[in-house]
Amino acid sequence: MKISHRLEKLRQKLTEKEVDGILISQPENRYYLSGFSGSWGFLLVSPKEAILATDFRYIEQAKIQAPGYEVFRITTDISDLSPKITDLNLSRLGFEAGHMTFSFYHKLSNLFKEKQAPLKLIPLEGLVESLRAVKEPEELELITRAAEIGDKAFAYIETKIQPGMTEKEIAWEIEKFIREYGSQAVPFEIIVASGPNAALPHARPSDRVINPGEPVLMDIGAKLNGYASNLTRTICLGTPDTTFKKVYDIVLGAQLTAIAIIKEGMTGKQADSFARTVIEQSGYAEAFGHGLGHGVGLAVHESPGLGLTSNDVLTSGMVFTIEPGIYLPGWGGVRIEDLVVLEKDKVKVLSRARKV
Amino acid sequence: MKISHRLEKLRQKLTEKEVDGILISQPENRYYLSGFSGSWGFLLVSPKEAILATDFRYIEQAKIQAPGYEVFRITTDISDLSPKITDLNLSRLGFEAGHMTFSFYHKLSNLFKEKQAPLKLIPLEGLVESLRAVKEPEELELITRAAEIGDKAFAYIETKIQPGMTEKEIAWEIEKFIREYGSQAVPFEIIVASGPNAALPHARPSDRVINPGEPVLMDIGAKLNGYASNLTRTICLGTPDTTFKKVYDIVLGAQLTAIAIIKEGMTGKQADSFARTVIEQSGYAEAFGHGLGHGVGLAVHESPGLGLTSNDVLTSGMVFTIEPGIYLPGWGGVRIEDLVVLEKDKVKVLSRARKV
Repeated sequence: MKISHRLEKLRQKLTEKEVDGILISQPENRYYLSGFSGSWGFLLVSPKEAILATDFRYIEQAKIQAPGYEVFRITTDISDLSPKITDLNLSRLGFEAGHMTFSFYHKLSNLFKEKQAPLKLIPLEGLVESLRAVKEPEELELITRAAEIGDKAFAYIETKIQPGMTEKEIAWEIEKFIREYGSQAVPFEIIVASGPNAALPHARPSDRVINPGEPVLMDIGAKLNGYASNLTRTICLGTPDTTFKKVYDIVLGAQLTAIAIIKEGMTGKQADSFARTVIEQSGYAEAFGHGLGHGVGLAVHESPGLGLTSNDVLTSGMVFTIEPGIYLPGWGGVRIEDLVVLEKDKVKVLSRARKV
Repeated sequence: MKISHRLEKLRQKLTEKEVDGILISQPENRYYLSGFSGSWGFLLVSPKEAILATDFRYIEQAKIQAPGYEVFRITTDISDLSPKITDLNLSRLGFEAGHMTFSFYHKLSNLFKEKQAPLKLIPLEGLVESLRAVKEPEELELITRAAEIGDKAFAYIETKIQPGMTEKEIAWEIEKFIREYGSQAVPFEIIVASGPNAALPHARPSDRVINPGEPVLMDIGAKLNGYASNLTRTICLGTPDTTFKKVYDIVLGAQLTAIAIIKEGMTGKQADSFARTVIEQSGYAEAFGHGLGHGVGLAVHESPGLGLTSNDVLTSGMVFTIEPGIYLPGWGGVRIEDLVVLEKDKVKVLSRARKV
């Protein structure tokens, strides 16, 4: 039912784009449109057909997970795919230009030339991603529960963390908690960055020992049935220095401002601007070098983008992060990240971990 | 020293391919050639220059990890990259056609057209992968140690596993052991597949409870400093049925045959044939639907390929798996996988977990 509804929406998009079929290769898109979770395969969707091509390893699994699809066995040699495509008598076949490699495109295109098939390959971008960006109630439910696991993990680590532990030890404590609380493999490597390491927005946990008085930035995520969550908090053990207090309040103010103002119809660029203005006016313009946030769902970074150059239009049902940060090389950094869902005239914050 | 040696080899390859520069976008290749472990960035290597372009998040990290490179800050907008490329006055720039997306290629190519830069983009495949396939002593050392963690994890789980546990519980016990024994995040999701689930070569651990007398297939890996290991064993709790005994002996015979015969100079196809013949002659030709093995290193699946269609030539210093399997839908499956390194006239088995 869910899958057939998604396919219906995809087929409307195909009509809009004037193609009579699409080849889906991007893994999350493949899963979203079919329910098939294997690591390799293609969907071929036309107005009437829905075909899933995969190899020996996944045939049985594909039949179980994607009952609405005709499952077709191929080898990793893509020439196996072309007879199936030519059988459909398509004239314009869309493909995922943001995922298909140059080399794959080239091979596919040559196959059709050799067969003199009157088929044109049409590059398409973000088609399924735009469907995925707006969450169905069941998806929102999973993301909300994944966010809850993140909240619990943060509350748990606050009882465990102490000076003398290494970043790696803390990251592993968090990960263990998340997994034992029911999460699948974490959607990205847990970040625990302390002191100067917190100035690297994407630091990896190191053997550095945590000291009192310095920032400790923790960026964590959980995953349920494929759906991710994402949460960042920055804390300080012992007495924070004046920089921490100042920077923390600016970042929190910027984040709360964004949460208060963002609403449906804004572009990702506009949404980014409110927190950025707060940080700029506080004199830290250079220290906030990344975008305000990103969509979260089957991928931990997906549409929409909220950032300086994003023209994505925010619509109801989208789930994304709001995560301004200030990074000062040598000292450290502060980032505060919540997961939110857009509800017309306001965002609803899904994260509940404490910020003060 | 290590990096400069690799760059030297790459530059020889550039001369062979008649290009005067290459744009590296594939993450493991980027790491291999620079030491930079961030999730996003490009290398631009010409006979004299080595440039690493990445964004705000990774600038500090890049400077530390890739001291031999000029670090250049870009945004995610790739047009930032083109001035740097045109500055080098290249006439033929290679790119990684098996990694770069159609869409990225298209944008890059248009940028040069707009600027009327006399630059040709040349698709290249497997250039860095072929360097990576032959391991340096330090790399072999890390892989051997990662393999040891896999062996220990298997010995550990043999003391823990019992009927009534679920696949997921066992997989998590294995993963915890591997991580606490010093591994980075596991290189792939640990597989524990029992009974009929073991007929799916790439099953994911489920809530299925393990019963005595049925096959339990476990495919595990560890990772040290980016280098992976890979090990599969299939066991049976309690008394195995006659199918298990028969199939297990065939797979083990096929695997030992391959280990005994494979040597330098063979193609991946030839290497695959010895185990395949044993399985075919035992009447299970249809039940061994995947290749014999794959290279292991920074990626858990890399060059060389050992399989029905692989023309890769096996050379000394390559590290790969030897993993025949027999899968019987409804009953289950048996796979036995060892990690080996090729030493001229023989393979040396790195895995030590017991097979009988």
